[in-house]
Order: sequence, then C-alpha cells, then structure tokens
Amino acid sequence: MSKPLRSFIEVAPDSHFPIQNLPYGVFRPASGGAARVGVAIGGQVLDLAVLEEQGHFGEQERVFSDDSMNRFLSLGQLAWRETRATLQHLLNAESAELRDNSELRQRAFHRQADVQMLLPARIGDYTDFYSSYHHSHNVGTMLRGAENALMPNWKWLPVGYHGRASSVVISGTDVRRPHGQTKPPDAEVPLFGPSRSLDYELEMAFLIGPGNKLGEPVPIDRAPEHIFGMVLMNDWSARDVQAWEYQPLGPFLAKNFCTSISPWVVTMDALEPFREPLPPQEPEPLPYLRAPNDSTYDIQLEAHLTTSKGDTPHVITRTNFRHLYWSIAQQLAHHTISGCNLQPGDLLASGTISGPTEDSRGCMLELTWRGANPLTLPGGETRKWLEDGDRLTLTGWAQGDGYRVGFGEVAGRVLPALS
Amino acid sequence: MSKPLRSFIEVAPDSHFPIQNLPYGVFRPASGGAARVGVAIGGQVLDLAVLEEQGHFGEQERVFSDDSMNRFLSLGQLAWRETRATLQHLLNAESAELRDNSELRQRAFHRQADVQMLLPARIGDYTDFYSSYHHSHNVGTMLRGAENALMPNWKWLPVGYHGRASSVVISGTDVRRPHGQTKPPDAEVPLFGPSRSLDYELEMAFLIGPGNKLGEPVPIDRAPEHIFGMVLMNDWSARDVQAWEYQPLGPFLAKNFCTSISPWVVTMDALEPFREPLPPQEPEPLPYLRAPNDSTYDIQLEAHLTTSKGDTPHVITRTNFRHLYWSIAQQLAHHTISGCNLQPGDLLASGTISGPTEDSRGCMLELTWRGANPLTLPGGETRKWLEDGDRLTLTGWAQGDGYRVGFGEVAGRVLPALS
Repeated sequence: MSKPLRSFIEVAPDSHFPIQNLPYGVFRPASGGAARVGVAIGGQVLDLAVLEEQGHFGEQERVFSDDSMNRFLSLGQLAWRETRATLQHLLNAESAELRDNSELRQRAFHRQADVQMLLPARIGDYTDFYSSYHHSHNVGTMLRGAENALMPNWKWLPVGYHGRASSVVISGTDVRRPHGQTKPPDAEVPLFGPSRSLDYELEMAFLIGPGNKLGEPVPIDRAPEHIFGMVLMNDWSARDVQAWEYQPLGPFLAKNFCTSISPWVVTMDALEPFREPLPPQEPEPLPYLRAPNDSTYDIQLEAHLTTSKGDTPHVITRTNFRHLYWSIAQQLAHHTISGCNLQPGDLLASGTISGPTEDSRGCMLELTWRGANPLTLPGGETRKWLEDGDRLTLTGWAQGDGYRVGFGEVAGRVLPALS
Repeated sequence: MSKPLRSFIEVAPDSHFPIQNLPYGVFRPASGGAARVGVAIGGQVLDLAVLEEQGHFGEQERVFSDDSMNRFLSLGQLAWRETRATLQHLLNAESAELRDNSELRQRAFHRQADVQMLLPARIGDYTDFYSSYHHSHNVGTMLRGAENALMPNWKWLPVGYHGRASSVVISGTDVRRPHGQTKPPDAEVPLFGPSRSLDYELEMAFLIGPGNKLGEPVPIDRAPEHIFGMVLMNDWSARDVQAWEYQPLGPFLAKNFCTSISPWVVTMDALEPFREPLPPQEPEPLPYLRAPNDSTYDIQLEAHLTTSKGDTPHVITRTNFRHLYWSIAQQLAHHTISGCNLQPGDLLASGTISGPTEDSRGCMLELTWRGANPLTLPGGETRKWLEDGDRLTLTGWAQGDGYRVGFGEVAGRVLPALS
C-alpha cells in the first residue's frame, strides 16, 4: 500500500486545502506588490509567480505573474496536469527541494489571512443553467401548480440563460439591496423601491479552459478538455423584481446586481476521486447530450445565515452537487451546439442546487415557499427573505478518506438600499 | 449665414461619411501593421494613431494606437468633443495644417477599400432590449393573439435580456446556420438538426463610454454622459430553436451563435441634429424613467436581401429608429437601476426595429408572419426564412440638408450548417 500523500506544510484534518486539493486563485500579498496566481495549501498560499521565476515549471509559457488565470486556463489539460504534478512533488513531505530551502519558502509562502483574494479570472461571459430538478420543480409548482411544474423542454435540454459578467464579484464583497419595479398582485400599477424579497441561490460554477471557435460545437466527449475547475457561487436574486420583469425574455435586473463566487478554483483533477454516475435521465437525452462515462460529483454543500443580531451562523441548506439532473459536460455540449464560442475564463453555473428534502432547498424562495412558511432561527428571529445586515455564506467539500477537497467559502453581507 | 462645413477630402453627396459625421472604428492597414483607431471621411480612413503620435490631440492620454476603442470610450464626453473639434478642424477645406502637408497626408490616410475593419471595442457585456412596440406587438400577436399581444410589464419598463458577448462579430463575417433542438407542434419528441427558420433582426446598438460603479445607478438625466455612439446590428436568430428553448428563462442558443455589428461607430454628437421628441408614452413611465428632454433620433434604416441566384440586393425592410417606444437613456437608466455596473465598450441593443406598416417590419418572422406569407423577390424566388447563400445587409443614415450622417452597413452571408 502506498503511503498517503502528505505535505510538509501543516494541514488540519478538516482543512479544505490539503495536498490532494491544491486549488488555484489570484491574490495580492498584504505586503503590497502586484496580483498573481497562487495555490492554497492548509492556511498558506503558495506563490506560483515566485516558483515560476525560479524555473520550476520548465519550458511552460510564463503565466503566473498575471493578475488573472486566463492565460493559464488557455494552456489546456496537459499543462494543468504537469503543473499539478510539479506542485504535488514540491509540497510533498518527502521532497527536500522546497521543504529545505528556507530562503525560497520565506518568499514563496504567504499566510492566507495576510492576502487579499481577487477574482480568479477575467470572466468574458457568464451563463447560468437551471439544472436542478428539485429546484425547477419547486419553483414551477409555486408558479403553475405541481401538474405543470416543469416546462416541456426541461428534461430534453439543460435550460440556461446568459447572465451579467460585469457584476460577478469575489467572496467578501457586500451586496447592496437593489431598487426595482415590482407589482404585487393587488396593485393597480407597479411600485418602485428597494426589493422586499432578496434571496440567495446556492450554486456551483465551472471555469472554461481552452475555448472553441465560433461555429464549431464541442462534442460532449471532448467537453472535459475545456473544463478547468469549479467554484461556489451565490446568485443573489430579487424575487419581487424577477416576478414582474421576467416575461417573456427571462431574468434581467433581478439577477444582474451581484453574483458572488469563491476565490479558490478546485480543479477537475482534484475532484476526480469524487466522480460518480449521473442520476438516471428519462427520457434518454438526444445523442449530442450523451457520453458513455458522463458523471457527476459527490460534493456536500451548505448555506449558513448569520443575522446582525445573532452571532453564530445557522445552517439553512444542506445539499449536494450530485442532485443535479444535467452534467457539466452536457451543459457545455449544449451551450456550444449552436456554434456559440466559449473563451478561457467564461463561467458556467449550475443554477440553484436543491435536493429532494425540505432542508436541502437552495434558496429562501423554496425554503419559505415564497414567504408562506418563514424560517425560525435558533435565536427566535424569523426570515421570509434576507434582511439588511444578514450575512450569507456558502461552503462545500468532497469528503475523502481522512482529508477534504474543499471549496472554502463564498460569503457576502446585505447592505441596506441606497436612499 | 455660415459657410457649410466641407472637407478637403472629396465626399460624394450620398456618402455616409462627410465631415459632419466622422465615425470611429478600429482597422488594420492592408500594408500590415497593428490595429489602431481611425475615423471615416468619404472613402478614406484617417489614422488617429498617426495624428496622435504627431501631438495633434494635445495633452490627452494616448489611446489611438490601441486595438480597441475601450480606453478612448472611458475618457468621457469632454475628451470626445475635443477630439471631434480637432478632427473637424484638421479635415476642414479651409484649414491648411493637414491639407497642405503632403507627407503627413500620405501617412495618415488609407483608402477604406484597403483596410480591414475589426470590432470597434472589446465588448464586456452585451444586452438586448425589446423596445419596438410594433415588433413586440406583432410577435405577441402570433404567440398569444392580438388581445394579449403585449405582456403587462411592456409599457412600464424596457424589457431586455443579457446576450452573448463572445459571438458579436464584425460586418462581413459569414454566419454558419446553427444546429439545435426544435419541436414542431405535431412532433412527439424534439428533433435535432440545422435550424430551418433562420432569421435576421434589424437593430441598432449603442456603445458605453465611462461606466458606473456596482451598486450605483445612473440617473436618467446623466445617461447621455455614458453613451458614446451607435452602430447597426443584425441579431441573427434561429426561430425554431427559440420557440422550443425560451421558456422560462428567455432566448439562449437561438441567438448566441452570431450577432453582427457595423464597424463605424457614429457619435451622439454627430447625431445631435437629428434628435427629435420621443413618441408619446402612455401610461406615463415611473419617475426614474422620465427626463424632461428625453429624445429619439430620425435614422432611416433598411434591410437588403441578396440571394445566391439573384445578383441585386432587394430591399425587404424600410423602417426608422424613431419608431422605438423606449429611448436609449431610458434603457440605460433601467439597466443600472438595480445597481448593475456598465463598463466602457458594453453594447446595448434596441431589439428589432419594426414600424407600423407591413414593409417596415424588421425580421422575416414578422414579414412572412411566421412563414405563412412568403416574400416574393423580384426574380421570382420566394422566402419564408433565410436560405443558405443569402446575404443580408442592413444600412442606415440620418438625412441632413445636403449631406448624410450614415452608418455604412452591416452585412453577412448564410453558410450551410456543418454536416
């Protein structure tokens, strides 16, 4: 039996960032200096710009002193795997090269608490799918009744829409309660003011590596070559604005005021041990959406709410990525079947991830059934929707044997609307 | 009476590019060399990178040797107006500075026929509105009958959705017929194959100059400060794909395979003489959508179809920008009221511009009433939708007294689907 992989950097057993993970992010050192690419290990960030400068990545194009991962993303699977192998070697408890070079260690490691995390990529385009059966069914039931909950197209194609890329922000950014038009059922004319039903949506999203040319779809069996890794995402939503604006062209202002993502991009290679079969798809998808080994991932997900009165986070959603009906390969193949071109750094999101149980619902809309059944929090406070001062945190991890491949968190606090 | 403005560069009376216009674009000289910014004058392009190098724009930040206009866009109205004044002076028949400097003229002018036009900006996000009453009413009538043609929100807010920025292409790019899922009414299950109802949409779009911060809406009376200029746009659409996919989150693959824009950006300053009052809006919009001097523009628009058998373009749409219900200032104010941040180079489009008459309908869907009344072309050919080999050209201009402020054209030819 081979020795378990272990780093010379101390990693707590419940850390999200053991040597098995090595997620990538873009950071700025607290000491100043330009943004650059690093990987998380335990409570540290390993500075890849420093390692690159020292020649540790061989002949590979220099990409890690960039302020985004876009060029690294464009290099493709072979380069990603070589980089990962290099890092797993350098960080290994058995390798002396970095371990015993105190001068290099001094320069190459930063404490996570000391760095500022930035968006991992310049996101050219952002797409949001609607791939959770339970979420779509719950929402459809509220709007049209259980008999017509799913649109006829839902089980034939991964429904999705184009979102707003400019307002994708990094974890820690506060979200301003938006103004907008709303029309309560009993109102004669629409009202204008701050949204009264601000919501979170627990989602995950993947980052595109190499793109495809306009007019040339990516066949589903080649989709994995274009997928670098995944992040947690909170797609903040104004439900009252959405209800009034969304017909016939879909959500617009209800979702373009802020979308938060977690800073550390967990690679598909790190997630490989947690791959599992997709849930059954019936009817069988059309051929362009079928791949023999298509799969999903066992990733545990939680949403935590901390109110301004309460001081401890309260878990309001416990769900799992495996509940999604459509796979990320199916999403990518569908997205490009028209010839639409994807580019390095594009972000493709899952839609709200709800499971079959009540506590696995991934947004307030479902948890409170559009406000009809308010949540009661441990301190006695109740919530139909998010209130000013509320802090919402999403977290997620895949549980290995004695280690976690984790995503860290994406958090944001609700600021009152501008007056 | 002041002498009419005239350039020493010869400009034909029906040219789109007299000295009153001076639209900006990004081009690459045929002789090679890097892309840079220029303005069109008659049949020539004036190379602004050359003039800038010679110090003609004073202390202004150097922006014209960029391969996009984004930095110039970010400078704002004052810089745009100073640049325009400088160019109208330099190009004036009465000014000797450039006219009599044959060495500089040699370097600074290129024949339009000799240059390659590129996208004028890196488009971060692209939004498409649905602001033509006649278009929305016609489409709604086909789908839901005349009584329910417009959704209840339509006259209260400029309906819009996020489009795909990566597939916005420059005029002259051929468009590949997309594949997709469709479901004819009599089919049990969806079909897969090339779209059988490919359409054009005659639109105009405006480019954002300085952006706004996330969380800080742009008040409608300050909207003009953020709008640089306008282009023609053809939003190619696959109607059969759209009908099956669009509920409930709006158009996706039906419109993300190609969107074509014209290369020359006509500034709002050049369009100022053609400003006119908006059509009446009833009910009165909410205060955030009202500005005392809000206006539209008198811009004549045409769509020309040339089939692979025919050799002459046939005009299939004659319409006018003034038919739009919502103004561009209203679109911008609405877009940002949620706090959504716009950025330099963002593209905001009108939606199909149809007028009240049958010949002013801006797409095949309306012209043929979803294929029920095919068009008969002069050579005897008929069309329900666009066919392979068809070339669709949009053109537009504002008619002044003895001159035209024109947009040139946006053209594209339909290539057969990949097999």
